[in-house]
Amino acid sequence: MNEAEARALLCEMLRLFYEKGWASGTGGGICGPAGAGLLLLAPTGVHKERVRPEDLFVVRTADGAVERAAGDPSLRPSECGAIFCAIARARGARSVMHSHALPAVLAADLALGADHVPIAGLEMLKGIRGCSNRDAHLVPVIPNTPRESELAAGVEAVLDDPRFAPAHAILVADHGAYIWGTDVWETKRHAEVYHFLFEAVVARRRLRD
Amino acid sequence: MNEAEARALLCEMLRLFYEKGWASGTGGGICGPAGAGLLLLAPTGVHKERVRPEDLFVVRTADGAVERAAGDPSLRPSECGAIFCAIARARGARSVMHSHALPAVLAADLALGADHVPIAGLEMLKGIRGCSNRDAHLVPVIPNTPRESELAAGVEAVLDDPRFAPAHAILVADHGAYIWGTDVWETKRHAEVYHFLFEAVVARRRLRD
Amino acid sequence: MNEAEARALLCEMLRLFYEKGWASGTGGGICGPAGAGLLLLAPTGVHKERVRPEDLFVVRTADGAVERAAGDPSLRPSECGAIFCAIARARGARSVMHSHALPAVLAADLALGADHVPIAGLEMLKGIRGCSNRDAHLVPVIPNTPRESELAAGVEAVLDDPRFAPAHAILVADHGAYIWGTDVWETKRHAEVYHFLFEAVVARRRLRD
Amino acid sequence: MNEAEARALLCEMLRLFYEKGWASGTGGGICGPAGAGLLLLAPTGVHKERVRPEDLFVVRTADGAVERAAGDPSLRPSECGAIFCAIARARGARSVMHSHALPAVLAADLALGADHVPIAGLEMLKGIRGCSNRDAHLVPVIPNTPRESELAAGVEAVLDDPRFAPAHAILVADHGAYIWGTDVWETKRHAEVYHFLFEAVVARRRLRD
Repeated sequence: MNEAEARALLCEMLRLFYEKGWASGTGGGICGPAGAGLLLLAPTGVHKERVRPEDLFVVRTADGAVERAAGDPSLRPSECGAIFCAIARARGARSVMHSHALPAVLAADLALGADHVPIAGLEMLKGIRGCSNRDAHLVPVIPNTPRESELAAGVEAVLDDPRFAPAHAILVADHGAYIWGTDVWETKRHAEVYHFLFEAVVARRRLRD
Repeated sequence: MNEAEARALLCEMLRLFYEKGWASGTGGGICGPAGAGLLLLAPTGVHKERVRPEDLFVVRTADGAVERAAGDPSLRPSECGAIFCAIARARGARSVMHSHALPAVLAADLALGADHVPIAGLEMLKGIRGCSNRDAHLVPVIPNTPRESELAAGVEAVLDDPRFAPAHAILVADHGAYIWGTDVWETKRHAEVYHFLFEAVVARRRLRD
Repeated sequence: MNEAEARALLCEMLRLFYEKGWASGTGGGICGPAGAGLLLLAPTGVHKERVRPEDLFVVRTADGAVERAAGDPSLRPSECGAIFCAIARARGARSVMHSHALPAVLAADLALGADHVPIAGLEMLKGIRGCSNRDAHLVPVIPNTPRESELAAGVEAVLDDPRFAPAHAILVADHGAYIWGTDVWETKRHAEVYHFLFEAVVARRRLRD
Repeated sequence: MNEAEARALLCEMLRLFYEKGWASGTGGGICGPAGAGLLLLAPTGVHKERVRPEDLFVVRTADGAVERAAGDPSLRPSECGAIFCAIARARGARSVMHSHALPAVLAADLALGADHVPIAGLEMLKGIRGCSNRDAHLVPVIPNTPRESELAAGVEAVLDDPRFAPAHAILVADHGAYIWGTDVWETKRHAEVYHFLFEAVVARRRLRD
């Protein structure tokens, strides 16, 4: 996939995430591969389903610095940039999405203050690279912060935590989730799998109460 | 954005609101900018997803009087007109939408007779102009009236209430919500943000019970 | 609207009802005007979102007899025909839709064996011809029968009941609803309004428990 | 329907199932007729809404062996293949779909460890070939296994159980469902009917608690 195709695919993913309710109110975002050591990054503060290929920034995975700006000078890169790059460095992810979905918020509520939500007893766990449907999969939950960039410390801590080595997602309490994969397609699969899992644990809690 | 573009965009927004379930059964509506002191206003009593650019009225913000009628003489301007104009005058809003969404009705139920619903602990609050995710955001709730035009007094009272200065939305019990912004795009963002918040407070109430 | 336009509009409505979840599994249906004393009627046992204009039957409102068959000789007219014609005769409806929506089934459950569900305290009641938002609107509920044609007696009884004179819908327990209007557009509006009301009474019951 | 039409129709069904939330995260699948003793089978591990006609395999109903591979040599046939063929042999089904829908998982939860979920008191039961709305319809539930191919023994056991002779669906706990019909269109109808029934029994449980 060349850069033009990656730009088009990322915009298609943003439209898909918007339709699914994961990126409403200008929230949410995505990054994807743009050559060695570089990531394509969506802009901040815009209606994500309307992002065009030329609106994406190119940033350096090493430090999040902007290598090439978007065509429109009024655009600024997503505040997710620092977190996306941290996940890319720690896990070798070539694509990360950020969700503002309500089921992610509600799944994080189920942690009741603990630092993770366990998910087990669901075939869909097999959709996560390296996981089986027998796993008790732990999804880390970090507290929210006033600014998105301040989440980086919490993100880096859970990426270093061996309990969460199998996870391809981080929940942010009251906020949403970061979900990643080796490429855009795996990120799409993981995003669909984790959102299913979030909905499932919330629905099962409701049925059991 | 010229007037033809504004007309097309308002019709696109009405289709979007219908698809989201905010404007079913001919309910809901929107207004947007039409030159100094003027607003474009959707007609009443029609299937909102089918409104065409030429179906919009031009009304005076100062008093709601019709400056230019819709092309089709059988159309009448939305009953929301007086309220839209009151919000435009009090807050400088250049676009206001009216929602008949069920989550707005259910969120207003949570007020249990009080004059507001507090919303806190949600990142999505940052999608409201001037708000942070640490705010305890108060959304005013006014009682419903037999005719929509009779809501104007209640709307004007909460617009004058300093407790509600940060709010860009008013809930109407048993009815829906008015949501506004500085332009059509901010109104779209605020509409998506507030509907997310309404859904979130209702879902959290269900999970906690 | 000539007959060709009516046929196209009825097929568009069937696609819309399918997308809304009111006509899945080949369930649901609609009729609309086809000249004096005649109704256009969808076929039975087919995927409703795929019905084409030439697949509609023309039946006599007076007795439900087929005046003109569908183009495809393998098609049979909807089993709703007798009920649609009974509603058309009793109320002067020129269009009736039949819904298999889950919220209609759940709203009928709330009757707990009584012959109606009261709906009150909702602005959306104004979307029903002749109703205000102050009304305590009674939607009749009739028991289901093994065959759809056997519902006709129950339908005719509630159409004669003065308590239900304001109603433009009949719920069938465990089954769905019939909803009508003076033309196809009013039937669409009433269908959207009543489905909203069904969802609202079910959601309020869940929140209050 | 010739093979090219069947291939196009199966891809259309996969897109539909994806939109309905039955085939997210690369989950779910379908097979359909491909000549005497043969079935067209979707590939595994791909985003199902993006499967193209040339991506389908032809397998032998008798033993699941691949008769003709997909055009793309990197594709492998769905792990559902053995189960699809077992259902085709036991019931004469010419099409089977596999759902990963959340309502299927929640409906299976209602079995509380028993080997079936009873469904009764719903008109939609008439959408299942051979069933009436007076039936107490038993949907078998089998336990999940680490690998999908290991489900075959459980599937074959319930296909042999006379209590489940009227069933055209098997629930797999924590996983989803297999649903079949005499052709692709009946499988679509049965899939819509059973998913409605799964949602209905879950919603009624919530309302009664």
